[in-house]
Amino acid sequence: MHRATERDAEMFGRPAGGWRRRWYEVIFEADTPSGRAFDLALLAVIAGSVAVVMLDSVREIGGKHRDLFDVMEWAITLFFTLEYVARLACVDRPLRYARSFYGVVDLLSVLPTYLAIFVPELHALIDVRVLRLLRVFRILKLAAYLAEFRFLGSALRASRRKILVFLSAVGMIVVIMGTVMYVVEGETNGFSSIPISVYWAVTTMTTVGFGDITPHTDLGRLIASAMMLMGWGVLAVPTGIVTAEMTSMRFASDEAARCASCGHPEHPVGARFCHQCGESIGPDDAVDV
Amino acid sequence: MHRATERDAEMFGRPAGGWRRRWYEVIFEADTPSGRAFDLALLAVIAGSVAVVMLDSVREIGGKHRDLFDVMEWAITLFFTLEYVARLACVDRPLRYARSFYGVVDLLSVLPTYLAIFVPELHALIDVRVLRLLRVFRILKLAAYLAEFRFLGSALRASRRKILVFLSAVGMIVVIMGTVMYVVEGETNGFSSIPISVYWAVTTMTTVGFGDITPHTDLGRLIASAMMLMGWGVLAVPTGIVTAEMTSMRFASDEAARCASCGHPEHPVGARFCHQCGESIGPDDAVDV
Amino acid sequence: MHRATERDAEMFGRPAGGWRRRWYEVIFEADTPSGRAFDLALLAVIAGSVAVVMLDSVREIGGKHRDLFDVMEWAITLFFTLEYVARLACVDRPLRYARSFYGVVDLLSVLPTYLAIFVPELHALIDVRVLRLLRVFRILKLAAYLAEFRFLGSALRASRRKILVFLSAVGMIVVIMGTVMYVVEGETNGFSSIPISVYWAVTTMTTVGFGDITPHTDLGRLIASAMMLMGWGVLAVPTGIVTAEMTSMRFASDEAARCASCGHPEHPVGARFCHQCGESIGPDDAVDV
Amino acid sequence: MHRATERDAEMFGRPAGGWRRRWYEVIFEADTPSGRAFDLALLAVIAGSVAVVMLDSVREIGGKHRDLFDVMEWAITLFFTLEYVARLACVDRPLRYARSFYGVVDLLSVLPTYLAIFVPELHALIDVRVLRLLRVFRILKLAAYLAEFRFLGSALRASRRKILVFLSAVGMIVVIMGTVMYVVEGETNGFSSIPISVYWAVTTMTTVGFGDITPHTDLGRLIASAMMLMGWGVLAVPTGIVTAEMTSMRFASDEAARCASCGHPEHPVGARFCHQCGESIGPDDAVDV
Repeated sequence: MHRATERDAEMFGRPAGGWRRRWYEVIFEADTPSGRAFDLALLAVIAGSVAVVMLDSVREIGGKHRDLFDVMEWAITLFFTLEYVARLACVDRPLRYARSFYGVVDLLSVLPTYLAIFVPELHALIDVRVLRLLRVFRILKLAAYLAEFRFLGSALRASRRKILVFLSAVGMIVVIMGTVMYVVEGETNGFSSIPISVYWAVTTMTTVGFGDITPHTDLGRLIASAMMLMGWGVLAVPTGIVTAEMTSMRFASDEAARCASCGHPEHPVGARFCHQCGESIGPDDAVDV
Repeated sequence: MHRATERDAEMFGRPAGGWRRRWYEVIFEADTPSGRAFDLALLAVIAGSVAVVMLDSVREIGGKHRDLFDVMEWAITLFFTLEYVARLACVDRPLRYARSFYGVVDLLSVLPTYLAIFVPELHALIDVRVLRLLRVFRILKLAAYLAEFRFLGSALRASRRKILVFLSAVGMIVVIMGTVMYVVEGETNGFSSIPISVYWAVTTMTTVGFGDITPHTDLGRLIASAMMLMGWGVLAVPTGIVTAEMTSMRFASDEAARCASCGHPEHPVGARFCHQCGESIGPDDAVDV
Repeated sequence: MHRATERDAEMFGRPAGGWRRRWYEVIFEADTPSGRAFDLALLAVIAGSVAVVMLDSVREIGGKHRDLFDVMEWAITLFFTLEYVARLACVDRPLRYARSFYGVVDLLSVLPTYLAIFVPELHALIDVRVLRLLRVFRILKLAAYLAEFRFLGSALRASRRKILVFLSAVGMIVVIMGTVMYVVEGETNGFSSIPISVYWAVTTMTTVGFGDITPHTDLGRLIASAMMLMGWGVLAVPTGIVTAEMTSMRFASDEAARCASCGHPEHPVGARFCHQCGESIGPDDAVDV
Repeated sequence: MHRATERDAEMFGRPAGGWRRRWYEVIFEADTPSGRAFDLALLAVIAGSVAVVMLDSVREIGGKHRDLFDVMEWAITLFFTLEYVARLACVDRPLRYARSFYGVVDLLSVLPTYLAIFVPELHALIDVRVLRLLRVFRILKLAAYLAEFRFLGSALRASRRKILVFLSAVGMIVVIMGTVMYVVEGETNGFSSIPISVYWAVTTMTTVGFGDITPHTDLGRLIASAMMLMGWGVLAVPTGIVTAEMTSMRFASDEAARCASCGHPEHPVGARFCHQCGESIGPDDAVDV
């Protein structure tokens, strides 16, 4: 938390004094009582706002209390808009904030209400506000959880090329298998076009299996059976990629051991000399697992 | 088993003598013939009681033998109530037992029958009695299995923060994707409110795929296909977390053995000489796994 | 292959001479031309027999050629019966063979045809013959594949206690969740008894999701969503168990390195002294990964 | 990329000069501007051609613009045919190219259009053209991605025997379980023949669960529940196989680095001194991963 606030101050520019400094402390920092109260209130409003949009969509509830929901939504949107303007106003580099991840989310969470005046269908997209809840990790001093987030993120990032290659291979397989099933089953059995057959192939190979479209011919069922078995084999791959990455990352951190002389943090099990400075790591400081 | 009984004695207080001591030995201990007989009888009654509730709910069976089932259930409930009172009576610190895991389960397994007099719907909840079967591990001296339980438990506990972070990320994704599908598919295709669309998104991303709600528009199917593929990638994560944790725990237990002479921490199972300093690791200190 | 034949000879007793010795060589061994021909013919008959039963069950095919199928099946059953009798006749310890895995399979593969005279429904169970195809691994000298089979088998066996504990935990969860859904959804929504609700809970937590029974109330859908997410977490466990076991078995075999002095085969990476005889493993014979 | 082009030149024979040399450079190489332009144009035509076939199959689109689609497809097919002939013409060993992977794909991507004159149903198989997109990895200098492809490929190849054994075991299980369900449920509940019941068993054990066929009897549901739980256990196996393989390959590549002085094989990335003998591993021989 501490560090996140400092990084913000460096990045967006904390004003030196005046009302903007006071506002900055309330809005961006969480160490003062008023800053903390503001953050908690903000979380409550965000959660409430998502709940309002969700309940509004339920016909039995939304229909009865139309006016109430309208008032609440406009109130929340107004509050978020003012907060967004305030955030921009009290940092030294507002443009940099506007382009940061949280800045974009803040903007996206008010835009749909205004756009819905012209295009009513977009109204429900207000739910993108749920992303604002990501702040919960920053606000509630859940620094340790941020570390876990980074762990998951870097595991996924490290495997991204393997996953991309894997997805492109799966993409080709589903296009071909979808086409084959379109030829085999035909329109009378629900496989009414190639795109729909490809959608069915994705449904099958990911083991989701909605069952809205199913093979009815013997050959089609044989091919589908082969696809399901193959699908499991193929889909063991992303699990394997992510798991191998995580196991390797865990072992790297498990085996970390610091050299007393130069402070290099990582040595393999059984190391007797630091591999950075060549100093002996005596038996007493032997690398511990 | 032995140890579990001792821990109980320490925690709940074994009476020094008198009828309470004799009862304690029968009810809480499993080393004497009468204690063992009591435990086995208890297991049989618990299993029977769960079977009664399940069969009772089947209309063809429950309807015909209403009276019989009523009698059996009240008999079992009475027996469990007396047992619960006896357990409280024969320990020195009854409140501590009442608050322990097994104490709470014991209470929960009799409450529904009594509550069902006032709220008949709760009747079926009597099935919570199945949790009492956990005693089987304590009673049948399945100490080794308890160790496995602890292994699984600690693997899950060690990964709980990663899993929480993961679940909160999945939570946000399904809310957003559910909202998008609500906008794209609309009420005419079964996505009749945002909560229902979110339920559908969970169904799809976990690869359960009931098929009670399915996309019908081309765009909806495209988004659903992307979600399924993404879902598989994302859901490789908990598997990765748990597997990495378990692999690391296995290796840690495989490798735990330190040389007394040079302190080298790692020796394979059955090692008799340290492979770093050549000193004998005598048979008495032979590496044990 | 070689070894499997030798083990058979030891176990069931190879006759010293006479016609029984000649028969034994044809039926049990695969090294002579006639033995090999017999084995290949056997495999063909087994595969054909399974195909016959499967096609027979397809109404359009089985209905037309009733007589043909009946003749074929009786011919095959007769052949298998004679083969079974011959196997018993030409070993020295027929009872031991009858009780071995392959002996039981051989018996099971002829019994249903005879039983079907009295209980026609059992007829299809003849398909248990497919198990006889396991012989393919023995016959075709697929010794390496047998090793893989043993690898998979021992990985599963090593994890069997963990899996049992896991299954009992899952068993309790599905009973409780099934009961809760029975209470919440009720008979009008298809959850017509607790056993059926438990079946639904298994369907959901294993991510199979047939969709023959689905929740219709809001609360039911909320609980189902939680179950699916929980289900994924819980079901990451068997994958984790099996994977950790396999990874550990692989590493054990990868790291095998033999001491030049005493021949002990396993030393950890970086070992400089054999941990069995204390002899130095010089840099030249350094343990190779 | 560079290397792939060289390998092609060696394998198929690059002409020494003349028009064939100039054509070869345009068609097979990607280093000259004209070669690169040709490759990009080719990718665009391939992608467009797949899109044409897919859209053509959608009745609302394909029906209206029949003539347009016919013209486009014949134009593309003609272009691909000419390209195929040109490829054969400008290499020194055309037969070797025709038998290579890309050669076969090139032929397959034009054949269906010509065959469809006689057998119209085969028309959609033109989608096999999507395989030509594999060239994208060669053309766009995505050498690193090729490495990932090889990584995935070799992980799968290393596990192929284990997977084959696993699939044969699964094959036997589904035949037997399918037969059992055919006997238990019977034709009235949708299990109308053994092949269909086997298809259902595959659907269930792979956790796809279409729901087009579902058990209706109590015994059938009990067996299905057992199959689903077993299915999960069994299907943890391919994941375990692939993951163990990948983890082991990762560690092998992480750890590959040998000290020139004492021969110790394992040093972490970035090591500058051997941790066994303390000798410098100069920057020039710095450990590279």
